[in-house]
Order: sequence, then structure tokens, then C-alpha cells
Amino acid sequence: MHTVARPNGVDLAGPLERMRREAPLVQCLTNAVVTNVTANALLAAGAAPVMADLPGEAAECAAAASAVLVNVGTPHDASRVAMREAVAAARASGTPWVLDPVGVGALTLRTGFARELLADRPAAIRGNASEIRALAGEAAAGRGVDATCDVDSALPAARRLARETGAVVAVSGPQDLVVARERELRIPGGSAWLTRLTGGGCSLGALVAALVACAADAGPTAGVAAAHALYAEASERAAGRADGPGSFAVAFLDALAEVAPADLAARPIEVAA
Amino acid sequence: MHTVARPNGVDLAGPLERMRREAPLVQCLTNAVVTNVTANALLAAGAAPVMADLPGEAAECAAAASAVLVNVGTPHDASRVAMREAVAAARASGTPWVLDPVGVGALTLRTGFARELLADRPAAIRGNASEIRALAGEAAAGRGVDATCDVDSALPAARRLARETGAVVAVSGPQDLVVARERELRIPGGSAWLTRLTGGGCSLGALVAALVACAADAGPTAGVAAAHALYAEASERAAGRADGPGSFAVAFLDALAEVAPADLAARPIEVAA
Amino acid sequence: MHTVARPNGVDLAGPLERMRREAPLVQCLTNAVVTNVTANALLAAGAAPVMADLPGEAAECAAAASAVLVNVGTPHDASRVAMREAVAAARASGTPWVLDPVGVGALTLRTGFARELLADRPAAIRGNASEIRALAGEAAAGRGVDATCDVDSALPAARRLARETGAVVAVSGPQDLVVARERELRIPGGSAWLTRLTGGGCSLGALVAALVACAADAGPTAGVAAAHALYAEASERAAGRADGPGSFAVAFLDALAEVAPADLAARPIEVAA
Repeated sequence: MHTVARPNGVDLAGPLERMRREAPLVQCLTNAVVTNVTANALLAAGAAPVMADLPGEAAECAAAASAVLVNVGTPHDASRVAMREAVAAARASGTPWVLDPVGVGALTLRTGFARELLADRPAAIRGNASEIRALAGEAAAGRGVDATCDVDSALPAARRLARETGAVVAVSGPQDLVVARERELRIPGGSAWLTRLTGGGCSLGALVAALVACAADAGPTAGVAAAHALYAEASERAAGRADGPGSFAVAFLDALAEVAPADLAARPIEVAA
Repeated sequence: MHTVARPNGVDLAGPLERMRREAPLVQCLTNAVVTNVTANALLAAGAAPVMADLPGEAAECAAAASAVLVNVGTPHDASRVAMREAVAAARASGTPWVLDPVGVGALTLRTGFARELLADRPAAIRGNASEIRALAGEAAAGRGVDATCDVDSALPAARRLARETGAVVAVSGPQDLVVARERELRIPGGSAWLTRLTGGGCSLGALVAALVACAADAGPTAGVAAAHALYAEASERAAGRADGPGSFAVAFLDALAEVAPADLAARPIEVAA
Repeated sequence: MHTVARPNGVDLAGPLERMRREAPLVQCLTNAVVTNVTANALLAAGAAPVMADLPGEAAECAAAASAVLVNVGTPHDASRVAMREAVAAARASGTPWVLDPVGVGALTLRTGFARELLADRPAAIRGNASEIRALAGEAAAGRGVDATCDVDSALPAARRLARETGAVVAVSGPQDLVVARERELRIPGGSAWLTRLTGGGCSLGALVAALVACAADAGPTAGVAAAHALYAEASERAAGRADGPGSFAVAFLDALAEVAPADLAARPIEVAA
């Protein structure tokens, strides 16, 4: 390993370096709107997506995968069955799995379902502030899929989820927040164009899964932080090349492939132990 | 409001201006092929998509949305249940909903289903000529998803649908036709590249929903016309920057974000009272 | 017909020329991840996609289509029912259908399902080496969706499938292999960027279906070979214009529209009778 740990102890480069070397298999059980862009983001960044999301295949796939993403954006009956199967198989085999609580708070069915999944101990949770607050049991504030409240407003909720589930909890916003039991990080940067692109948050959840799988040495917090730093770096580069949301999406995939481990090591993050 | 109503009384700029200001929540129950591009078109143009399309969530979402799109392109069992729930909730709350009868006429199951939905009084209907003719009960002429008959051939069918359902009926083609009970419009322009892109028509249906929701002052006919004018303007700009269907798709999303209300006010349309 | 048959007897230009002229209707029953990119690849190349994939519509659509694609990448319960309906209708009407055994070998459910479909005599089968080997009954070697074994390792399996089912069998890899009962072809070229794009293989399966439908004179082997040659030519052009996987995807669609029949006629292929 030629990566340099950051002085503050969060190794952002190591997980990316390992992802590029090993191309971890990331099983995605995600919503119907973003399957394609999620798979492309994983492929661009260096992971290998497998989108097996049906009852009868989900557990077999999870047992072979390096990480599992569960995104509840369109939680159809069969999807929920498959997600339960995948999560149980992941837990049984010690495979890390990530929960993305899309739309939780705004819609009742998925809110109950996502909260129920918490018992199976995700390695990480990623959402916007209103989703994280609702997942932690606070009264709903969002109107569905976009973030309508401030990242910092979700800090108590993120801490509670981290304490009660053991997960690393990430709150996406203008400045991302990563909350683990032992420390808290803030990851600045990124581009507002990501909010004009469907699947911007959902693909980040998939990269969180991929990089947590590659963060055995550095720990899951480093994996979660590396995913957010990769997103920030790639979206800033893409913004510099874009004329609008269409060309941003294209440039963003290019940049996900182009960002190197050393680029992440050079990015600023704030750490509070 | 700083928009200028057109001399002929159709305010194309007003609905777009309001969409940019309010980012209306547009619930899309649409076909599996185009969910991603539909959400991206809405985001690019300034609306907020929410794609909740499952039984148990569809009604709750519709009650919170500013408009609902129902596109019958892949009408699976669960989709049809969710669409009925969403349409009923939209009607109950006075939320405008739009019907896109994709493939109606060519396939029997969806033809019956789409015709049944008419009883719930869509605010607007958008399709190609063969779909509109089949929806109005004429013998099928299409072979599925592409337009195989002339826009003007659908004029009697559009008038009948407008009269019987109260909807504003739009027929897409080289020159778009917008038929309401009180007047008829023709909106020229656009680009043939749109026919080489899947979801070209489907995304237009979503924009119709978004702009009808923003046309309270100007009336639903203005909202439908504004969506078609936005599409014509954006596709013409994109065609000028494209080398083929891939680069057209990218440039089209960029252009949807870029077109301003004043650009629509400057476009020609024909009005017959 | 103004195409020139190749000296070695494989007419690559003829099927493409006919596809451009007739825009054959290609029904795709494919996985949820790639519906959009598959439809766009068909539209770009000159075919007309129709994605009707539900029980109750699949057979009616297959009876009207020029070719049918069955891709088992996300074989949900309803998808499997619809695929059986479509395949039976295609066989009854003499419509060629193509099997893409995505993930076969790695996952048990779909492996059994895909093997069962072989009894309905696909006109062509397209997969990577590990999928083709598993479909032919060899022990699984893949980890899901990416090719982990050499194209030549699948030659015996491809020959067995061609002999037992009558299908033309294509194995995708750095050099593609096309195996028919009467002869074997090797089609060099292409771009490694295709492996960084989800749906790269799946869209090729759809083009195989489209070009087999247009190869009545030249025979299905020429249709399968033409699809692979079109892919090789278009991906090489796109690679020359791309900065990464995002811009490659865009340039690839442009190139699919741009490649002419004469371009295929000029490409090298190896033929062993």
C-alpha cells in the first residue's frame, strides 16, 4: 500500500486505491429510476455492479458480493422481499450493507420498512437531512426526495442512529456530515449540479457501499468519507466542464474514472474526535 | 409577474416562470424505460420529480404533489393498481393529472386500461396521432410506440376527447396540435432527433404535467402549450449542437435548463378560437 | 440491393442497409437496468424498439414484431411469465428471437430459466464466455455479470449450443466469436470502454435481434456478425472521441447512427468454414 494516511487519521486514498485494484462486486437493490446511472457510476469509479434484486436471487448474490446497497426509493412488494433476503444474507456472511432511506419521512410505507431494516445493522446509512431525521424517528419535514432542511439540523438524529445501530451515518448537503460513534467528519465541496440530476444521491450510496468494502484496514468511516470526497472532487471537476445538467452528468462519469487516490488525499476534511 | 401575455392571449412565459420559481412536485407513474430520463428532464427544466409508483404509496404521494403524470408504457399489474390510486387521490384533492397513452391502439390491454382512466378526468392528454385516435375509439393504426400517421388525422379524435373528458388534448408531431374545448393551437418547430431518443415523448408528458400545475392564472391550455413550446425551443437549440442522438440527448437536457420564459414568449404559435 | 457480399461470403453490409431502410420493430424483454440504453441503441442504429414486457401484452407484441430479445438480467416473476409468452408467440409466428443469458452460471434461478428457454429454439444466443459456458451446462466460472474467462474457453460450449439448439452463438470478448453449425467467425476490434458501461453487452443483444431480422437473404449468421461488426466499428470511433466512460457512452450512440453499411463491408473478419 502506497497510500499516505492523513495526519488526522482518516485515510481517504486507501479505500479508493483498493477499489481500483480489486473492483469489488457491489450488489445494488435500488429504485427503478436510478439503476442505470448507479451501475454506471460504480463502473466508472472502478467497482463491479450486480443488480440482482429479486426474491430467490438476492440472498445468493449477497453471499457472493463484497457489499450490498439497499435503496428504498421504489419499494415494491417483491423489492422488499428481496431486500430482506439480501440483508439477512449479508449479515450472515459478514458482508457490509448500506441503507439509503430515499423518501423516508414523506411516505409512510417506506418509512416503516426502512426503520425495520435498521435491526439488521447496516454498516452505513446515507441520506439527506430530512431522510436521516425521519429515519431516526423525528417528525417528517421533507416533501419526498429533495432535501428541504439543513444538514446540521440532522446532527442529533445522525448521532442517535450511529449510537443505536453502530452504522456510520452520512448526511448529504452543501457540506456533507459523516457521523460515527467514535468521531465526526465534515466533508466540504461538491457541486449544486448534483441536485439537478436524478440519482445523484443514490449513486453516492452505491459508492459508499463499494468503498466501505475496500476500507477494511482504514475502517468503515474512512470508506464512507472516501466516497463523499470522491463525489466532491468528481463533481467539482465536472462542474468546470459543464454547460448544464446534461453535460454535467457526462463529465461527472468521466471524472469518477479519472480521480486518483492522491487527489482524495489532498482534499480538506474536518475531523472532530 | 413580469411576463407578457401574447397578443393572441396564450401566455407561454408565465407557466415557465412560475415553474422555475416554485419547483412543483410532479409525481410520475411512468414506464420502466424512461423513468430516469423523465426525472432528469423535470429536474433540468426546473421541476421536482417524485417517482413513487407503487400501491400503498401512490395515493399519499399524489395528495402532496402539484401534478401527477400517468404514462401507460409498461402497465404492469402493480402499476395499474398504483395508477388508479394516484388518479383517484389527484381527483379528490383537485390536483391536475396528465394521461400519456403510450402504445394505445397497438396493444389491447393498455388500450382498455387507458380508456377506463378517462372517466377520472385528466387535465391533459398527450400522445402521438395514432395513440390519440385509438384512445378516442378509432381503429388502431399504429405499430406500437412510434407515430405512423399524420397529426391532422387525429384532429377529430382530439376534439372528441376534449369535448367528452374536458381535457386539453395534445398531439405530438412535426407540428404539435393542442386542442381544448374553447380553442385550438398549433405549435411549430422542434427537432426530428427527438424521434431517435427513447422517452422523447414521455418526458414531454411530464413537462405538460409540471406546467399545467403552474398555469393556474393562464389556464391549462397555456400550460400544455408552454410545455410544447419549451420542448420545441430546447430541441432546436440541442439540434444545433449535436453530432448524433447521443450528443443530442445531452444538449437537450442542457437546453431545457437554459431556455428562459422570454424565449417562449418570442416563439410563434397559431391560435384558432 | 447495392451491397457487396464479402469475398468470404459473409455479407455484413446487407443487414445494416436493410435495417436503415425498414426500421424493424424489435421487442425487448430485458433487464430493468438497461431498458433505456437498449432502446436508445436501437433507435440510434436505425431500428424501432418496443419494450412491452408484461404478461398479457408480450405475446400480442411478439406477433407484430420483426424480432424479439429475451435478456434474463433481472428475471422477476412477471418477467419470466412474459418471456415465456413472447417466446412461444415468436416461435408460432416464425419471428426470430435472441437469448441473452446475463448472469447465467452465477445465479441459480436464472440459470435454470435460461436453459429451459433453449427448448424454444432461439435464432441467436449472445453472452460472455462464462455465461455461454454455464448455459451449455459447464460448471459456473463467472461472478455474475462481467466476463472472467477467455473467449476461446467458451468455444466447445458455443459449438455444443449451436449444434443442439440450431442457434447462432456469439461470445463477446476482446475478439468476438460467432459460432454457427456451418461455420465460425472471429470479429476483432472494439473498445475496452464498453466494459465500463452498463448495458454494453445487453444493447448488443438487441442489435443482434434487429440485424438477424434484417438478414433473411444473408442468413442469421450474417446478421449476428453484422451486429458485432457495427459494435466494433462504433466503439472504436467513440473511443477516439471520449475522455472517459461518460463521454464514451454519448459518442457511442452518435457513432451507432453514423456507421454506414460500407463501413462494415470494409472491416476484417476471420471465417473458418
